[in-house]
Amino acid sequence: NPQLNPTTSEPPTPPTDHRSLAQAHGLFITSPYSPGSPLLLPNGAYVFQKLQSFLRAQYPQFGFQEVITPTIYKKSLWEISGHWDNYAEDMFSVQGRGATGRTENAEVGQDEEFGLKPMNCPGHCLLFGNETRSHRDLPVRLADFSALHRNEISGALTGLTRVRRFHQDDAHIFCRPDQILAEIEQTLKFVGMVYDTFGLGPYKLLLSTRPLDHFIGTIEEWDRAEMQLTEALINSGREFKTNKGDGAFYGPKIDIILKDSNGKEHQTATIQLDFQLPQRFNLQYQASPEEMVAQLAGCENAKGLDNAHRRPVIIHRAIYGSLERFMALLIEHYAGTYPFWLSPRPAIILVLNQSPEILKYVTFIQSVLSGLRPVPPGSLENSNGKPTPQPLATIHLPIDVDASSRGLGKKIAEAFKKRYNHFIIVGPNEARDQTLKLEMIHQPNIPTSENALSRALGRDLQSDDYK
Amino acid sequence: NPQLNPTTSEPPTPPTDHRSLAQAHGLFITSPYSPGSPLLLPNGAYVFQKLQSFLRAQYPQFGFQEVITPTIYKKSLWEISGHWDNYAEDMFSVQGRGATGRTENAEVGQDEEFGLKPMNCPGHCLLFGNETRSHRDLPVRLADFSALHRNEISGALTGLTRVRRFHQDDAHIFCRPDQILAEIEQTLKFVGMVYDTFGLGPYKLLLSTRPLDHFIGTIEEWDRAEMQLTEALINSGREFKTNKGDGAFYGPKIDIILKDSNGKEHQTATIQLDFQLPQRFNLQYQASPEEMVAQLAGCENAKGLDNAHRRPVIIHRAIYGSLERFMALLIEHYAGTYPFWLSPRPAIILVLNQSPEILKYVTFIQSVLSGLRPVPPGSLENSNGKPTPQPLATIHLPIDVDASSRGLGKKIAEAFKKRYNHFIIVGPNEARDQTLKLEMIHQPNIPTSENALSRALGRDLQSDDYK
Ligand SMILES: [Zn+2]
Ligand SMILES: [Zn+2]
Repeated sequence: NPQLNPTTSEPPTPPTDHRSLAQAHGLFITSPYSPGSPLLLPNGAYVFQKLQSFLRAQYPQFGFQEVITPTIYKKSLWEISGHWDNYAEDMFSVQGRGATGRTENAEVGQDEEFGLKPMNCPGHCLLFGNETRSHRDLPVRLADFSALHRNEISGALTGLTRVRRFHQDDAHIFCRPDQILAEIEQTLKFVGMVYDTFGLGPYKLLLSTRPLDHFIGTIEEWDRAEMQLTEALINSGREFKTNKGDGAFYGPKIDIILKDSNGKEHQTATIQLDFQLPQRFNLQYQASPEEMVAQLAGCENAKGLDNAHRRPVIIHRAIYGSLERFMALLIEHYAGTYPFWLSPRPAIILVLNQSPEILKYVTFIQSVLSGLRPVPPGSLENSNGKPTPQPLATIHLPIDVDASSRGLGKKIAEAFKKRYNHFIIVGPNEARDQTLKLEMIHQPNIPTSENALSRALGRDLQSDDYK
Repeated sequence: NPQLNPTTSEPPTPPTDHRSLAQAHGLFITSPYSPGSPLLLPNGAYVFQKLQSFLRAQYPQFGFQEVITPTIYKKSLWEISGHWDNYAEDMFSVQGRGATGRTENAEVGQDEEFGLKPMNCPGHCLLFGNETRSHRDLPVRLADFSALHRNEISGALTGLTRVRRFHQDDAHIFCRPDQILAEIEQTLKFVGMVYDTFGLGPYKLLLSTRPLDHFIGTIEEWDRAEMQLTEALINSGREFKTNKGDGAFYGPKIDIILKDSNGKEHQTATIQLDFQLPQRFNLQYQASPEEMVAQLAGCENAKGLDNAHRRPVIIHRAIYGSLERFMALLIEHYAGTYPFWLSPRPAIILVLNQSPEILKYVTFIQSVLSGLRPVPPGSLENSNGKPTPQPLATIHLPIDVDASSRGLGKKIAEAFKKRYNHFIIVGPNEARDQTLKLEMIHQPNIPTSENALSRALGRDLQSDDYK
């Protein structure tokens, strides 16, 4: 099996490989104790969380509700979902110590086998199925950032792109068949909005349709769904291609294929329709009067339903896809010149000497630019000797300080190596005049950064203050 | 084993039990497919994330840096940390499918046994040990909200308090021995600030000191550490008790014991010193000139160090402790009357009739109060037909609407049952005059809520508008 060998045949790609850039910025490390599960260092966790927060901030306007679901489920759930049979090789199994993994005659909780979840769908089906749903309650849109595990061969593991543990901006939309068009349209708009924000693109859209032989549901259901997908794609105004017959047996899908700066293609977002899971989990909602008049389609998918109930369709959708992989893409995309709000090293304050006045002014500048309330140096305390809570809406920026006794040349060299986006130099003049000297490097959009810094300082930056 | 029986002997506690209140608010469900891993519904995930965001907003001012670490680690890591030997019964083991769990002669990645992490400490030790650390780099403070798993007996599992899967506001402070006092003082202040914010308390502090016989390190190290803990406790100005000899063999600790409204005591926060893990992971930093003069203490703990290096002390600390348990505590503490910013059901808009003008005004009110940009009803779009990203600092409040055709009486009854904190009634008059009628129920601090609502609406609420 060639996949078992380490991937030594890859061409060397030092300048834009996400791993070397990530190392310069201190984003993550890997460990032989958990191959394929990158450990995100503070800077990497910072970027990860900014990506997560950005999407979270968008969820309410698109009607998504976040949920928090288990990491492990019993074998019996994975049997219902079909993963135990179809996905066995890619799943990790989990046992209580001393358990045999067999459930016959076992004491409850003492001898159960679990699966470490590779996907969130079965858990979301449990949540949907937990309540009686009316046709008016749909769509229900559940989002989940859970860690997922897939047992990839260890020889294939690389950085943030080929991993065993990752997080998706995963969501499942449970909707009526007649809501597919609107949901796909909104999802395509969501994708466009997010990729525009990061300056990613152009991207291609790829529709995969009903396979010839083996599929569930009726041809009418497929045709209706595919027509809605096609209409949404046309309405998006973007180029798309159709791969006829290339869909999974349980539903058609749309893939979003991103071209990176080297012309390499990456499949990131997916929008996958699913007629199967609703059936496996016997999910249903109370039919609308129109649906009751139209009667039930007599297909296997409707098995077990009376005419007063219908199966929802599930839309699996992810916009980033794997957050780890999306981070790798962005690392290469920005090549170190992150936008100010996302940069793990937006700025460093280089201190000319260590006099108390300068250090005091530096602490002030640092706290203002970081988004923290300005505090007297060396103290978190207000006049009561008690720290004060920072408000929830605080956006913290990691503004660093080099107040060591080394010379400015050495400090600048190190700051260059660490790829800070801005150097802020503070010496006796700046402390006296309460100004600052700004140098920008690795910065794609200088006016935006100036703007952000001016806003933070509460006044315009003087053009003399930076070059 | 009595723990195997379901806990049927508990006294009935319907009104303040977190489970029944949680049900009224739709916070979580449990599933036989993952006993002890509560599934947080949208409202529960909302409260969970508000708790998490609140603490995250405080981390920068206390110098904590968040990291993201693996869920599973190989057996060999747990052998280093000592968990495999001492914690075996409480850990879940994890295997790739088809793996035997033995590592001899196994193909890499094909036949490894892993442990599902019950704690974050070993992962954080890997992160600390990954870099050369100078005495000037300390303290290093790593925070982590990872999901943790402990294999509790299934009969003992209850709601959010006795679980198998939970999240801690976990952090590890790697510091020099002379930094213990300052770190403990700051941690106690952090605890005080957080508990004050939630109106929790009073709480007791409990110091556990060196056991008589079995301990690691020297008596001098323990004495110095215990003196610093005691000084920090005295400086906190709070009552504390000492349990002499009650510390773990690897270090003294401080427990925070909270009294709930029923007088029941809960151990929530912990501050645990650890001399052992730094030794097991051979963690070290470059000694300061003073430390080099003072020479190395000749104890087992220093084994393998030359005089130019020292072991850091680890402080394990959690302020909430388990977020799930802390949520349960808050649920009972507030008994449904959450503060406005934390409430899963802060307000519902009850619509008197479904005329287009009223519905339009309702959509406007809802988007303003939710923290979203006001949008025309039924549309996410700006003039370009494209949605606009919400800024990162958006605080979203889940303001619901009941626009059904039912009568107001029925709507109010249901809103009461669901324990919304505010009812906002909108009819023809309100839509015409662009006002709103406010009724508050279950609300502990009405001026604060009025304030928040006025701020959201951008104008003072008229006193006639609510009763
Ligand atoms: Zn899915
Ligand atoms: Zn720990």
